[in-house]
Amino acid sequence: MHFFASDYIEGAHPSILEALAETNLVPQPGYGEDAYCRRAAEKIRLACHTPDADVFFLSGGTQSNRVVISALLGTVEGVISPATGHINGHEGGAIESSGHKVLALPHRNGKLDAAALRSFLADFYADRDGYPHMVQPGMLYLTHPTEYGTLYTKEELTALRQTAEEYSLPVFLDGARLGYALATPSSDVTLEDLARLTDCFTIGGTKVGALLGEAVVFPRGTAPKHFFTHIKQQGALLAKGRVLGLQFDALFTDGLYQRIAANAVRQADRIRAALGELRVPLAVPSPTNQIFPILSNEDAAALAREVVYTFWEKADEGHAVIRLCTSWATTDEKTDALIAVLRQVLGGR
Amino acid sequence: MHFFASDYIEGAHPSILEALAETNLVPQPGYGEDAYCRRAAEKIRLACHTPDADVFFLSGGTQSNRVVISALLGTVEGVISPATGHINGHEGGAIESSGHKVLALPHRNGKLDAAALRSFLADFYADRDGYPHMVQPGMLYLTHPTEYGTLYTKEELTALRQTAEEYSLPVFLDGARLGYALATPSSDVTLEDLARLTDCFTIGGTKVGALLGEAVVFPRGTAPKHFFTHIKQQGALLAKGRVLGLQFDALFTDGLYQRIAANAVRQADRIRAALGELRVPLAVPSPTNQIFPILSNEDAAALAREVVYTFWEKADEGHAVIRLCTSWATTDEKTDALIAVLRQVLGGR
Amino acid sequence: MHFFASDYIEGAHPSILEALAETNLVPQPGYGEDAYCRRAAEKIRLACHTPDADVFFLSGGTQSNRVVISALLGTVEGVISPATGHINGHEGGAIESSGHKVLALPHRNGKLDAAALRSFLADFYADRDGYPHMVQPGMLYLTHPTEYGTLYTKEELTALRQTAEEYSLPVFLDGARLGYALATPSSDVTLEDLARLTDCFTIGGTKVGALLGEAVVFPRGTAPKHFFTHIKQQGALLAKGRVLGLQFDALFTDGLYQRIAANAVRQADRIRAALGELRVPLAVPSPTNQIFPILSNEDAAALAREVVYTFWEKADEGHAVIRLCTSWATTDEKTDALIAVLRQVLGGR
Amino acid sequence: MHFFASDYIEGAHPSILEALAETNLVPQPGYGEDAYCRRAAEKIRLACHTPDADVFFLSGGTQSNRVVISALLGTVEGVISPATGHINGHEGGAIESSGHKVLALPHRNGKLDAAALRSFLADFYADRDGYPHMVQPGMLYLTHPTEYGTLYTKEELTALRQTAEEYSLPVFLDGARLGYALATPSSDVTLEDLARLTDCFTIGGTKVGALLGEAVVFPRGTAPKHFFTHIKQQGALLAKGRVLGLQFDALFTDGLYQRIAANAVRQADRIRAALGELRVPLAVPSPTNQIFPILSNEDAAALAREVVYTFWEKADEGHAVIRLCTSWATTDEKTDALIAVLRQVLGGR
Repeated sequence: MHFFASDYIEGAHPSILEALAETNLVPQPGYGEDAYCRRAAEKIRLACHTPDADVFFLSGGTQSNRVVISALLGTVEGVISPATGHINGHEGGAIESSGHKVLALPHRNGKLDAAALRSFLADFYADRDGYPHMVQPGMLYLTHPTEYGTLYTKEELTALRQTAEEYSLPVFLDGARLGYALATPSSDVTLEDLARLTDCFTIGGTKVGALLGEAVVFPRGTAPKHFFTHIKQQGALLAKGRVLGLQFDALFTDGLYQRIAANAVRQADRIRAALGELRVPLAVPSPTNQIFPILSNEDAAALAREVVYTFWEKADEGHAVIRLCTSWATTDEKTDALIAVLRQVLGGR
Repeated sequence: MHFFASDYIEGAHPSILEALAETNLVPQPGYGEDAYCRRAAEKIRLACHTPDADVFFLSGGTQSNRVVISALLGTVEGVISPATGHINGHEGGAIESSGHKVLALPHRNGKLDAAALRSFLADFYADRDGYPHMVQPGMLYLTHPTEYGTLYTKEELTALRQTAEEYSLPVFLDGARLGYALATPSSDVTLEDLARLTDCFTIGGTKVGALLGEAVVFPRGTAPKHFFTHIKQQGALLAKGRVLGLQFDALFTDGLYQRIAANAVRQADRIRAALGELRVPLAVPSPTNQIFPILSNEDAAALAREVVYTFWEKADEGHAVIRLCTSWATTDEKTDALIAVLRQVLGGR
Repeated sequence: MHFFASDYIEGAHPSILEALAETNLVPQPGYGEDAYCRRAAEKIRLACHTPDADVFFLSGGTQSNRVVISALLGTVEGVISPATGHINGHEGGAIESSGHKVLALPHRNGKLDAAALRSFLADFYADRDGYPHMVQPGMLYLTHPTEYGTLYTKEELTALRQTAEEYSLPVFLDGARLGYALATPSSDVTLEDLARLTDCFTIGGTKVGALLGEAVVFPRGTAPKHFFTHIKQQGALLAKGRVLGLQFDALFTDGLYQRIAANAVRQADRIRAALGELRVPLAVPSPTNQIFPILSNEDAAALAREVVYTFWEKADEGHAVIRLCTSWATTDEKTDALIAVLRQVLGGR
Repeated sequence: MHFFASDYIEGAHPSILEALAETNLVPQPGYGEDAYCRRAAEKIRLACHTPDADVFFLSGGTQSNRVVISALLGTVEGVISPATGHINGHEGGAIESSGHKVLALPHRNGKLDAAALRSFLADFYADRDGYPHMVQPGMLYLTHPTEYGTLYTKEELTALRQTAEEYSLPVFLDGARLGYALATPSSDVTLEDLARLTDCFTIGGTKVGALLGEAVVFPRGTAPKHFFTHIKQQGALLAKGRVLGLQFDALFTDGLYQRIAANAVRQADRIRAALGELRVPLAVPSPTNQIFPILSNEDAAALAREVVYTFWEKADEGHAVIRLCTSWATTDEKTDALIAVLRQVLGGR
């Protein structure tokens, strides 16, 4: 069997396991007060060129979204998100469960357009003070890469940022797969850009080589008051915070984070090229580590006998969109083998 | 410096790190569907003699309490807890944040008495249907060991269980430090007893040798409907659930969990004996891995120069209660060294 | 000035004020335990032919929606609603504030189609147990009349009911303006039908002649456990519940409720006829007491100098949808006067 | 039967019914934008000597507490209250349901002592930044009169205010029965004092002569941002807000509010005097319209045959505390009749 279902099917990059083993018996205070969290935070500040950033380490993506969004929003405020935003569909209602509406706007390939944002806000504030019978827009949520593997350009992010700023909305960017964005050759958005264009963003570890962990970065040091208690209240505080700090310390040493992400993107590019040769259409033009081929139901079934992939959605009655995913652990050999299978199964169509 | 501040100052038991390393590249599905979670759940079912138990793996204690309690309670129900219960003071309002009141009852050394429980319930239901202007009692929360390291006897737990049952209240036992309870020679409560006397209980890993992780056990297979979605909604679902499964798999192999807990209790007994010789009074008669000496403020300050301990609370103007804590990683040598310091600092009083 | 902005610009029908005055000094128990609430509930049971119905009296529409929906849903469940449903946009996030997502489906003139509902549910349950990473569908919310004044037919409601039943979803119908639906000659849906086709529905008083008040009816006596405490917890319990009971007692005496609603619909029909003669297009084919003409911005501005109406939404850059609303208090004279103004302002177009 | 169970057993003061009748057909905008709400707010500002006050009108006491507290608190903050505070026991968990813990402190006759408050806060902030694992103190809640009918002195309120101010805690005073406090001859606290010593307080209408209604006053005009939306979100916004405005307009015309409250206190004083002559002990020294005699169970049963009172609580196995309550509608004749019954039933003991 060939495993391309997701970027979290393996454990962690070996450097992380080594770091865990080496430091195992060093006594450290709990709850993120340890030396490794401090060191990792410092390395992230350096990488982002934000000496004043507040950095926290949480366990997962939904958790980070929930903690950050519920901490940033006032009681009657909601979070604006493209309709495809992870918070809007795939987090079990985590945001609503903490009391806030997701204000879903139309998307294009998973991306929100500054014009669509502006149009929504202009309508809402047509009457100077906004419409008091409705949820008040409180912040903007974006994902990068998006749920479809697509990326914002620096220009697009800048336009969104400007629009949000005009309406005093903080911008929060969910980077659960951020490494793959940073490692995509065609992307012009850097860590430094994100730090400049957002009020908070996350650097995903779980899907980029860590066992678990997301770094939550407030680049200008504007973490909400009592943010530690927010983390605690949501059940998101690890007693052994060292486990998270150590991993980000390893990932931000010698550029490991982007290096392993670059491998995943390179392998995905090879798969994309092979699918192109096979004239398999893609549902979305994703340049990152996720690929969304459209297959006939028969081809999809045939492929499933040899490859573990993710069923994404029905394209039409006869076709399915599937997802293939590479990771830090995808070797040339594994990709070669997958391509061979693809050619064999899909070649004769 | 001698480190006895908590049982989470080190990393994980070496067997756990080995298991992580060995399985690192084996592809596995995410979200707890992996082979290790299944294997660990099976071993826990065996250890509890509960073939039908539902077993889930979460990251931490507050998280487990929050997920379980919010899943078990109806909207207008609250959770009964001894006033010292972890949920009532030290979880940042996690339970209230999910909409539920903690109905705090008086405690004795951290324990709730069946008579106190019965008295509260009898008053509430004095008027047949209960008092509809108040929060409805919805479940019972206990900790074992308690926040003071004390333990319920089988008789006490049985009485609490019976009382709860009369009022149709499910019993949830928070076992964040359960290993130390099971490993205490004077305790007559077994895993099997807990499975029989509760509707849900947790087996704490974080404080008993794991990097992170709590097993949530519904011994009779009565996990609330959609419990997986509850976990997801609360941000408690790890993409790489294998990290939790592997650890409990290791801890429940060859009795490792209780074996390493027994070491901690043995070391604590040695410290207790030394304090007894020094005639240092203890604030609470804890038989587990936590010790609560009462020191004069001067002695506490002197000790702090050589030992990292936890300040617990003010006893009176001139005295403090401190906490010393042992763990799976406390060696005979470390305990010897602590005892020498204790004798030196406290001996001349 | 002519006032047609809403159906809540006047006080109450005179019978209600008389009832308040007559009973003012009669001592009664509080919290809905009074004789008037009992009497009103009994009259509603009779009118619905549901001898076992549970009937509660609340203050307003958003409050009723919030209390009912949060009482019917489990923690991880959401409420399905047409996108235009009042709960989805105009209740300040009341549903999300109580922890639940509104699962918005496409609408046609404010109405949800059984086929659209079925399609959503079939997709969600494509994988036998549903998709556990998403909010679980927990109930169906409909309005009748809808926010656009439109009405379901008995056939449409029956189809929705059947679909909901197949998926075990309770149906809740928000009847904030129910009187106008019942009084619309072309409608074939009766109170009895609603009692048969829903699990809960409200009979709106505030917008149909009461000072305030909505009757919440569980026609089969299936009010959620502790529903009284739900009301209390949400701050929706009036100490002097008699104020609500008395009003519904009056409204359900000698058919007053439908009689005064019929007047409003008749006056609206006259206005619709006049607009038809003037060839003013309507945005929605509402047969009830709300009328939604599309006017050029200039006409809208001219009309605003003589008539108080509600701006509804922008139709396009040059046109606006406005709302004209009649009520129990709209006399023939008032309608005559409005029609004269309409002819004068819009006649020369 | 003689009715002294509560101060909400009758309807409204006749002036209120008259005002409703007189204005019934005057068209007014909805949602509190009407002329009567504006007029009532202005009269309240005058009565409080606070020209900048924000004034809102809500329906009931629990609702007001819930809306104000959830609007004033941040997500991880709790509200400090004496343990007997209405929010802590008798509001069905309304505060916790909106996500916040009630931090209950010891009371004396229903009152919180500034020293107890200071001691709690000093402990919490022993470590400069407070204890981040716990709910953060966010505001202070007091009732006046308390649940036991007792009153704070100006000196006591001033001390509480100073302590709260040192810790930057806003003070919210629940005046569900405020009229009776203001009308108690021995009390030295005026409306003006309350406006000076609190950040928000309520003026209860429901229990002081209105059909329903509480005025929420932010004396310095510091209502939280989007407070209107908070009201809407909680289901507390009446479409016909005029119903509330009109009542407070009437109550604050020619001192009606305090005048009718003074009658209730005077009648209560007569009952207290009679009980004193009968040597019936009182459970609490309440000087307002509530009286809490301690009766033997036999006497309580005998009295219940002629008087409708409220059972308050068990004093001991053989005795009960009951509550007798007067109101604006208690005439001299009704009080005479009650006293005669008291003498007859309790006189021969």
